[in-house]
Amino acid sequence: MTSPSSPLADIPNLLRCETTPREAALAKAAEMTHAVYPHDAVYGQFCTVQDYIDCPPEDVFDYLSDLRNLDEWTYSTRHFEPVPGATDGLHVGWDTLADDTRIYAKVVANRESLTVDYHCAWDQGDELWMIYINRIIPAELVLKKPGSVLVWTNCRHPYYDDNPNKHLVADPNRVWVGDMWPLFYAGHRAELDNLKAILEYRHSRGIPVTGHVVREGVSA
Amino acid sequence: MTSPSSPLADIPNLLRCETTPREAALAKAAEMTHAVYPHDAVYGQFCTVQDYIDCPPEDVFDYLSDLRNLDEWTYSTRHFEPVPGATDGLHVGWDTLADDTRIYAKVVANRESLTVDYHCAWDQGDELWMIYINRIIPAELVLKKPGSVLVWTNCRHPYYDDNPNKHLVADPNRVWVGDMWPLFYAGHRAELDNLKAILEYRHSRGIPVTGHVVREGVSA
Repeated sequence: MTSPSSPLADIPNLLRCETTPREAALAKAAEMTHAVYPHDAVYGQFCTVQDYIDCPPEDVFDYLSDLRNLDEWTYSTRHFEPVPGATDGLHVGWDTLADDTRIYAKVVANRESLTVDYHCAWDQGDELWMIYINRIIPAELVLKKPGSVLVWTNCRHPYYDDNPNKHLVADPNRVWVGDMWPLFYAGHRAELDNLKAILEYRHSRGIPVTGHVVREGVSA
Repeated sequence: MTSPSSPLADIPNLLRCETTPREAALAKAAEMTHAVYPHDAVYGQFCTVQDYIDCPPEDVFDYLSDLRNLDEWTYSTRHFEPVPGATDGLHVGWDTLADDTRIYAKVVANRESLTVDYHCAWDQGDELWMIYINRIIPAELVLKKPGSVLVWTNCRHPYYDDNPNKHLVADPNRVWVGDMWPLFYAGHRAELDNLKAILEYRHSRGIPVTGHVVREGVSA
């Protein structure tokens, strides 16, 4: 039992072996486990997708760290170019999910921990609030085989529900990125499929994974 | 259209705006989106849980980086002590999910990227294959409020399905950690609830989050 003098004694509802025996804990876990889970419970506030990619972690890191490659593996973001005069790596491109829509982005990456995040926003680059959190994990460690596991999370920032920069949008009928939040699981799943297909195609053939982007035209 | 000379032209099934118009892509996304998802589709191969914690990222990092704190917030791992003579930070404790079971663990953390991983194994410390991948994200960035988002992923290593070290287990009827994989979502969800409750309790009261562990006895 947790003794009355324990620093945890006043914190309600903890599930610990001192206060909940093994059989009771397993029963509770079974009760929490369901055959199916509602969309909102899994993808409502945080949208995480993950997969195994048969390509070395360092190559996945290099590929993801270069914004130009988004032209290849995302559905809709295209043609990122450095913002003139920007000193923090800010780029601007097009998001063809909507007409005449600029997307600003910078990469924040850490080679040691294999994290690669895109800090983005539609219409303006002063507050980059759409953040694509990516982490590459060496599959040798976690799945005992070569390659990578990629875990990609987006969090439901309040701006998805209410765009504070409506004054920057010329067309009041333009779709807002946040209106598509319910489709983010599907969209990100499809883009992760793209990424996996491209990286595995090249790695399996000994083709360098980066340096292939062809600018095929942009929506303006 | 993706031109025949594109380096992507030979890779099948990519979903890109050049080859799938916006309306068709949104229709496909809608088709991929369901009211409910089966347990195995969401938690079968990778088990990710995540939540908001009203506690600063640096404090969450400090708390998670100290293995002794597992005594407080996990259901069953207790009393980690350094393995005598180990030079890589290897610790050994008890996992009360099973009788007479040692768990070996070391922390691999990166303060800059706020990653804190536990590399663990039951029964032996030579191959640490159970890896708890944790990443702390400043909530100010992704949810526009103070505090942290924690994303925690486990990958289904093949040893979960087949223990290669059965010879180290005295009791052939002892439960194997991998037999509980279907309950990992529930177990980790409950432990993340513990972690959130403990950190929020202390942070909201101005109590330092670390340094409270009381060793209440161990299973042996």
